Amino acid sequence: MHIGLVGLGKMGGNMRERLRRGGVEVTGYDPNPAVTDVPDLPALMAAVPAPRLIWIMVPSGKVTDSVVTDLLEVMDEGDLLIDGGNSRFVDDARHAEQAAAKGVRYADCGVSGGIWGLDNGYGLMAGGEKADIEFAAPVFDALRPEGPRAEGFVHAGPIGAGHYAKMVHNGIEYAQMQALAEGYELLAARSDLIHDVTGVFEAWQRGTVVRSWLLDLLVKALKEDPGLDDIEGFVEDSGEGRWTVQEALDHAVPMPAISASIFARFVSRQEDSPSMKAVAALRKQFGGHAVRSA
Amino acid sequence: MHIGLVGLGKMGGNMRERLRRGGVEVTGYDPNPAVTDVPDLPALMAAVPAPRLIWIMVPSGKVTDSVVTDLLEVMDEGDLLIDGGNSRFVDDARHAEQAAAKGVRYADCGVSGGIWGLDNGYGLMAGGEKADIEFAAPVFDALRPEGPRAEGFVHAGPIGAGHYAKMVHNGIEYAQMQALAEGYELLAARSDLIHDVTGVFEAWQRGTVVRSWLLDLLVKALKEDPGLDDIEGFVEDSGEGRWTVQEALDHAVPMPAISASIFARFVSRQEDSPSMKAVAALRKQFGGHAVRSA
Amino acid sequence: MHIGLVGLGKMGGNMRERLRRGGVEVTGYDPNPAVTDVPDLPALMAAVPAPRLIWIMVPSGKVTDSVVTDLLEVMDEGDLLIDGGNSRFVDDARHAEQAAAKGVRYADCGVSGGIWGLDNGYGLMAGGEKADIEFAAPVFDALRPEGPRAEGFVHAGPIGAGHYAKMVHNGIEYAQMQALAEGYELLAARSDLIHDVTGVFEAWQRGTVVRSWLLDLLVKALKEDPGLDDIEGFVEDSGEGRWTVQEALDHAVPMPAISASIFARFVSRQEDSPSMKAVAALRKQFGGHAVRSA
Amino acid sequence: MHIGLVGLGKMGGNMRERLRRGGVEVTGYDPNPAVTDVPDLPALMAAVPAPRLIWIMVPSGKVTDSVVTDLLEVMDEGDLLIDGGNSRFVDDARHAEQAAAKGVRYADCGVSGGIWGLDNGYGLMAGGEKADIEFAAPVFDALRPEGPRAEGFVHAGPIGAGHYAKMVHNGIEYAQMQALAEGYELLAARSDLIHDVTGVFEAWQRGTVVRSWLLDLLVKALKEDPGLDDIEGFVEDSGEGRWTVQEALDHAVPMPAISASIFARFVSRQEDSPSMKAVAALRKQFGGHAVRSA
Repeated sequence: MHIGLVGLGKMGGNMRERLRRGGVEVTGYDPNPAVTDVPDLPALMAAVPAPRLIWIMVPSGKVTDSVVTDLLEVMDEGDLLIDGGNSRFVDDARHAEQAAAKGVRYADCGVSGGIWGLDNGYGLMAGGEKADIEFAAPVFDALRPEGPRAEGFVHAGPIGAGHYAKMVHNGIEYAQMQALAEGYELLAARSDLIHDVTGVFEAWQRGTVVRSWLLDLLVKALKEDPGLDDIEGFVEDSGEGRWTVQEALDHAVPMPAISASIFARFVSRQEDSPSMKAVAALRKQFGGHAVRSA
Repeated sequence: MHIGLVGLGKMGGNMRERLRRGGVEVTGYDPNPAVTDVPDLPALMAAVPAPRLIWIMVPSGKVTDSVVTDLLEVMDEGDLLIDGGNSRFVDDARHAEQAAAKGVRYADCGVSGGIWGLDNGYGLMAGGEKADIEFAAPVFDALRPEGPRAEGFVHAGPIGAGHYAKMVHNGIEYAQMQALAEGYELLAARSDLIHDVTGVFEAWQRGTVVRSWLLDLLVKALKEDPGLDDIEGFVEDSGEGRWTVQEALDHAVPMPAISASIFARFVSRQEDSPSMKAVAALRKQFGGHAVRSA
Repeated sequence: MHIGLVGLGKMGGNMRERLRRGGVEVTGYDPNPAVTDVPDLPALMAAVPAPRLIWIMVPSGKVTDSVVTDLLEVMDEGDLLIDGGNSRFVDDARHAEQAAAKGVRYADCGVSGGIWGLDNGYGLMAGGEKADIEFAAPVFDALRPEGPRAEGFVHAGPIGAGHYAKMVHNGIEYAQMQALAEGYELLAARSDLIHDVTGVFEAWQRGTVVRSWLLDLLVKALKEDPGLDDIEGFVEDSGEGRWTVQEALDHAVPMPAISASIFARFVSRQEDSPSMKAVAALRKQFGGHAVRSA
Repeated sequence: MHIGLVGLGKMGGNMRERLRRGGVEVTGYDPNPAVTDVPDLPALMAAVPAPRLIWIMVPSGKVTDSVVTDLLEVMDEGDLLIDGGNSRFVDDARHAEQAAAKGVRYADCGVSGGIWGLDNGYGLMAGGEKADIEFAAPVFDALRPEGPRAEGFVHAGPIGAGHYAKMVHNGIEYAQMQALAEGYELLAARSDLIHDVTGVFEAWQRGTVVRSWLLDLLVKALKEDPGLDDIEGFVEDSGEGRWTVQEALDHAVPMPAISASIFARFVSRQEDSPSMKAVAALRKQFGGHAVRSA
């Protein structure tokens, strides 16, 4: 199989490599001349045999919108466009409609695995028509981890289902990280009692209920920098967590732990907290409690 | 009636004044010679007619423990000791036992109202024996706000019930402040749309569902310092909120909003967040996400 | 002044009455013949002198959309349409555009006060053009509570700002109610110690930091039904709370207490909890812990 | 090595088996004659060579207190007592003092792994004196999973540190389960879009960021009972989660996700929610909102 891959950044570049290792021919396009295989999208179309599979791996939102629009200018009827980026699932309906107007098929795929995916394989969640997902099977099989297909790939439902599943995956991920982080903070707060915080996490890796890949990574991080002295407690979020909670609100699903994880990140990025200013101001008003001047 | 009042700080000083305005004779003792009425506890005992009512108004914990112990050295059988400070309700059982060993009666009273209590009166929640509460009624009546007694005073239950009720009061207070503060932060975040944040809070004071004393105080604070620029988002907590949640945990009572309010205060006091360091470290490990160096 | 009022339900009916008491002439329209003043919208237009002020007071969402559309069929250039319902603020931009296409002016107004507004007056938050808000001033003045205008009315900003402020108001309201409710549950759980739960809340009404209108209402409810035995713990939500949190997520504003309040309502409406089923299933898997069969 | 093991229930019975497989001689005592190796504690003492290592594996709290007391009646100076149950870390100081009074050494060990520990090995966290931990090393090595010792065992610190680490482990476990459960509930709520909820979780097992043992168990549970129809959303908690949050409160550590997980369990066990009754009552009071009668 020979596919086109648009977007050769941190994720896309690794995926090109893993696909090639897995026997899939890949022509990659990226505006960065240092990494692209072809100079432009028409050249990409020329390189990939029809009916083409074009996989997009670019930042979600406006960049993806614009790449989809540009691609649909040059793709042909019967081609299949797959958005593998972290798009919001509602974008898929829009992109699928745009594609359908040109006779282009559309599917979406959530991809998890980060920088480790190159070697470990990527967890894949696809949404779309059965025939389209089957057409792309060799790509999924090259990208996913070794082992049973069902443990690294799912056809979750119709168009949008892949990104939806990935969105929920990231929501869960946020809360799993928060869980470990809260435990870490408490252990570190009791250094009078816990003499080996890193050792505690390390000892959880094989036999305990909390063993997990994120735990392994935390052990790795703590071994590199016990006390995490070199890192600031400033945490970005890339959207999926917020979307998860917004979906939960739309469907009356209680989501206290995942939402708490996102709010903790918001706070981590604030120079000062407007809400805590308000609470401090109130305490001063009713109790004459001393406040710190800003 | 003539009582002894131990502790003439921010709260105790004002209470002496309000009691006197209310026709209760008060002899106050404080280690601070600038405010005390008598030089020491024996002099206090000499000044107050038996059976004495001695009201303690000092910081909870070790200070109260020590004052109780010192007072029981000099008080006589049949006297009544009331702890009006913010003691943890479990301390009351201990203090009552200490008192009983000397034949001294004991009651506890939670007092709310802050620096406004002098003029507005204090909300009072008492715990103890019926006879002891009745003996102290003139004191409660002088301290509580005008209006029906039941709207400013309650005999909540046996010894400890007063401080328990006050503890829960403060837990509620934390979450009410947090509610206003979260709303404030969102309104302030949308200054593109909300051109008059102070005005919005002000407009809520008379007809809305959220009208409350804390709202009035927030309006006052915002008028003094729109934007709260002069105040840092650093918020202490004085214990009752934590105790409330700890009690909730002991009795399997879900308490998500009050606990969230306390955790927000904890975060507000951190220079950097160990848990957010851990999350940042994890994101770096799996995604190669950039982190900020500390 | 003579205005048209569309929607004479629980809120609209009371508002007609209060407006009339305040000297504003009101012609009301409602599909319910038992309450309407005129048989249809053309008759409403005929009754109200131009340039007309038409105030909508119907359920938010599709009903409001449809009423706006119907009204714009019959209103004339220069008329002013005010949506006083609980619309989502994003709807205002749409409705204003629709109105502008017909030369009709548009403003929005959040209204708080519930069934008590008839006698107490309503808290009002308006969004729109200065001239339009001024034109409607007599209506605002009749609806708002007595006292300084600024304590019951605000022109919060451009179109949408009124509903935005009302949305945040309701978010705060949710968390204030949750705060009282959590405190109530803990006090009720300790009936061994707190012998008079209703009395405790009653005693908070005059002197304490938590005094508020919602507290007064809780006292009223507890006096009518101590133990709240006649009421089920099943709580609807009308949208504004969810929108508040969704806005907070869009603007990276931490909102732990308000979101917790909404999630608690979601849970209250579930026959059984899918997430708790999942946790129970997990405990069974790893620990052989007994589970309850559904 | 030959040790005594007191408590042969679900955990203790499996541990005896694993220890024997690992070459440690075990004499077990349990009041249940069907499983015990010896009729009483004196017989246990007679069977185990001195200096003895006696390992307790019984329910925490009063049962452990009583077993410790009984054992100290029969143990000899120089023996080592290890509490391997889920005791609260503060109990260890007390037990160690009791033991020291008899010249008996004391250590504590948190044990994780549930019913899978027999085959997988147990994650172990020990607290105590270095010499005592070394004395018990053969036991730890037989119980822990294969692989590097540090990935299944830690000497976390002085007496109490083992149970402290286990307590935090369980707090993290609660939030990890809650994370998966919230994601499950949202996926299940969107069955219109997600046609294969079980398949989605299954596909996360090998390549994704959320891969973990708990995820594997959820897949197992969903395969046995898709929809989890046979299980009720009723979840017990065994104490460690509450203690974790209580410790967090004592040390001003924010813990929003772990506390949310515990509160969700509390709610799951309520027939009706007193706090939601209060909120429903409030909504009825101010808005005339319909309520459900209990």
